[in-house]
Amino acid sequence: CSSTTPITATMFPGDGIGPEIAESVKQVFTTAGVPINWEEHYVSTEIDPRTQSFLTWESLESVRRNKVGLKGPMATPIGKGHRSLNLTLRKELNLYANVRPCYSLPGYKTRYDDVNLITIRENTEGEYSGLEHQVVRGVVESLKIITRQASLRVAEYAFHYAKTHGRERVSAIHKANIMQKTDGLFLKCCREVAEKYPEITYEEVVIDNCCMMLVKNPALFDVLVMPNLYGDIISDLCAGLVGGLGLTPSCNIGEDGVALAEAVHGSAPDIAGKNLANPTALLLSGVMMLRHLKLNEQAEQIHSAIINTIAEGKYRTADLGGTSTTTEFTKAICDHL
Amino acid sequence: CSSTTPITATMFPGDGIGPEIAESVKQVFTTAGVPINWEEHYVSTEIDPRTQSFLTWESLESVRRNKVGLKGPMATPIGKGHRSLNLTLRKELNLYANVRPCYSLPGYKTRYDDVNLITIRENTEGEYSGLEHQVVRGVVESLKIITRQASLRVAEYAFHYAKTHGRERVSAIHKANIMQKTDGLFLKCCREVAEKYPEITYEEVVIDNCCMMLVKNPALFDVLVMPNLYGDIISDLCAGLVGGLGLTPSCNIGEDGVALAEAVHGSAPDIAGKNLANPTALLLSGVMMLRHLKLNEQAEQIHSAIINTIAEGKYRTADLGGTSTTTEFTKAICDHL
Ligand SMILES: CC(C)[C@H](C(=O)O)[C@@H](O)C(=O)O
Ligand SMILES: CC(C)[C@H](C(=O)O)[C@@H](O)C(=O)O
Repeated sequence: CSSTTPITATMFPGDGIGPEIAESVKQVFTTAGVPINWEEHYVSTEIDPRTQSFLTWESLESVRRNKVGLKGPMATPIGKGHRSLNLTLRKELNLYANVRPCYSLPGYKTRYDDVNLITIRENTEGEYSGLEHQVVRGVVESLKIITRQASLRVAEYAFHYAKTHGRERVSAIHKANIMQKTDGLFLKCCREVAEKYPEITYEEVVIDNCCMMLVKNPALFDVLVMPNLYGDIISDLCAGLVGGLGLTPSCNIGEDGVALAEAVHGSAPDIAGKNLANPTALLLSGVMMLRHLKLNEQAEQIHSAIINTIAEGKYRTADLGGTSTTTEFTKAICDHL
Repeated sequence: CSSTTPITATMFPGDGIGPEIAESVKQVFTTAGVPINWEEHYVSTEIDPRTQSFLTWESLESVRRNKVGLKGPMATPIGKGHRSLNLTLRKELNLYANVRPCYSLPGYKTRYDDVNLITIRENTEGEYSGLEHQVVRGVVESLKIITRQASLRVAEYAFHYAKTHGRERVSAIHKANIMQKTDGLFLKCCREVAEKYPEITYEEVVIDNCCMMLVKNPALFDVLVMPNLYGDIISDLCAGLVGGLGLTPSCNIGEDGVALAEAVHGSAPDIAGKNLANPTALLLSGVMMLRHLKLNEQAEQIHSAIINTIAEGKYRTADLGGTSTTTEFTKAICDHL
């Protein structure tokens, strides 16, 4: 049993069902004896002039200081001219890689039972540049920006991930037959990095073909790396194969070892406060955070407890066809620990 | 039994397996007594100065004159600076909408058995503008262009299609939360057209969520309309749900009533000339062409013959797990007529 001085981690419970699922994580972590002190930060109701967003300066400083955090869903307040809170976090904290493991959950049946892949998404540029304008009336354009620096960085992350996680293959996803310059540069960077990892098989797959292969036979894929929008699309597609965003974790990787794990589903305002939310995605994201912190023993214990609870099927939340409340499901997981 | 003066249609057999599957179509159409004379055009081995591509001037003129054609796979010759033949055709003939019906084939089992949807893809602009450049070393950009004119045109096509084909719902697929100006304009145009079709339900679905819903429950969708790249991605994803591009037809719609039906799979050079190719996608594309020509009786006869042959399972090509040659499979279809 590991006994370490407690680690301080930032927690953004987020909006809607966020606080309820964050509570679930805190309970499970406490029961498992995880040595973490949470620094909780909520989204503000007012714009903080120092961040020019609803994220407070203190909350960003907290992540920068702790270098590790866990984030629930955040709904961007209605109104014009605000950047999405999620995008602001990625940008301000320079979270350059979004890692989403996607695997079939034993005991939770979907049409697929052999999914075990990782999508790694470039998280800072591409189609998300925010650069758009009207050329003339009725003609608008958006700029997709690809840089050598960001492409090398995410490719390096993907190959290093593959190597350190016992993975055999990295597939770069692209549409370079059409966007020869932007996606072409992305591929060029992937190839450069691939040469440094001769033990990892490298391949390139056109995005349309990739999506077709994923729905026909997802077992063909191992680690996938890709520009921002393709990552957005493919990670959701893959989540769909195994049951949806309520079951899939993610972690955002920044410079200087920063890691912000994140449940990427919505804030589900319709069921907020009703003790009905499924905390699985946030719990599994928390497990990713623990692995990042090298708290592997607790990570595996908690992971097994979640998987076994779902597999047994006695306690499941409504989204998985059960009748359990969030607290009942959480208690069932704690009982497995 | 309809007796009409023969219609002249252009046929591009294309490369690789193209000539073999085109032969299959000609046989099936002849057996069914379809009143069509084919004007065949092959891709040239030299660039035609009048089209600046490997497509001959005569072949484009043929489609313009006949206003109807059928196209097999075309591989763009290797070498720098040539536009893809497929893209050149779309551009030169102003083929603004790519229509791909996607439905579960009775008797051909996949993980999905309830797919019945139509993707309608804007086919001329968006991410396919070809406008790209290097900003500084290591920084490149591509332009995505959305125009009011092309968006209204494809939206109008989608709603008109829904209305005239007994469909109930049109879903516009977008990422306007990120590309507010480009995808925002696309949605604005769809909404304008939707108002003219109060009997058709209109909804907007973000592309990542759309892909997740498609793999979880494709029966949720009816007609989908979207910008170029999203259409490229989603139409292949949908084809994957029902067995792949070897089984799904498509038709490109141009101004002035031009229609070019097209098998969108590759030219499969590895099996070319071996009598192994599956002609189903080109045959079903031919059926779309017949419906466009209002030759509905023959269209339905041929459609049933194809479906029944596949469903019976006695004659199937290798890609569908059978051992039949192209000619055996074709003969089986003709025997059903
Ligand atoms: C909410 C939205 C801006 C975001 C994105 O497009 O990145 C989401 O889809 C995601 O994947 O985290
Ligand atoms: C071959 C390629 C240029 C083409 C496209 O991207 O449109 C293909 O994928 C298609 O869907 O017809």
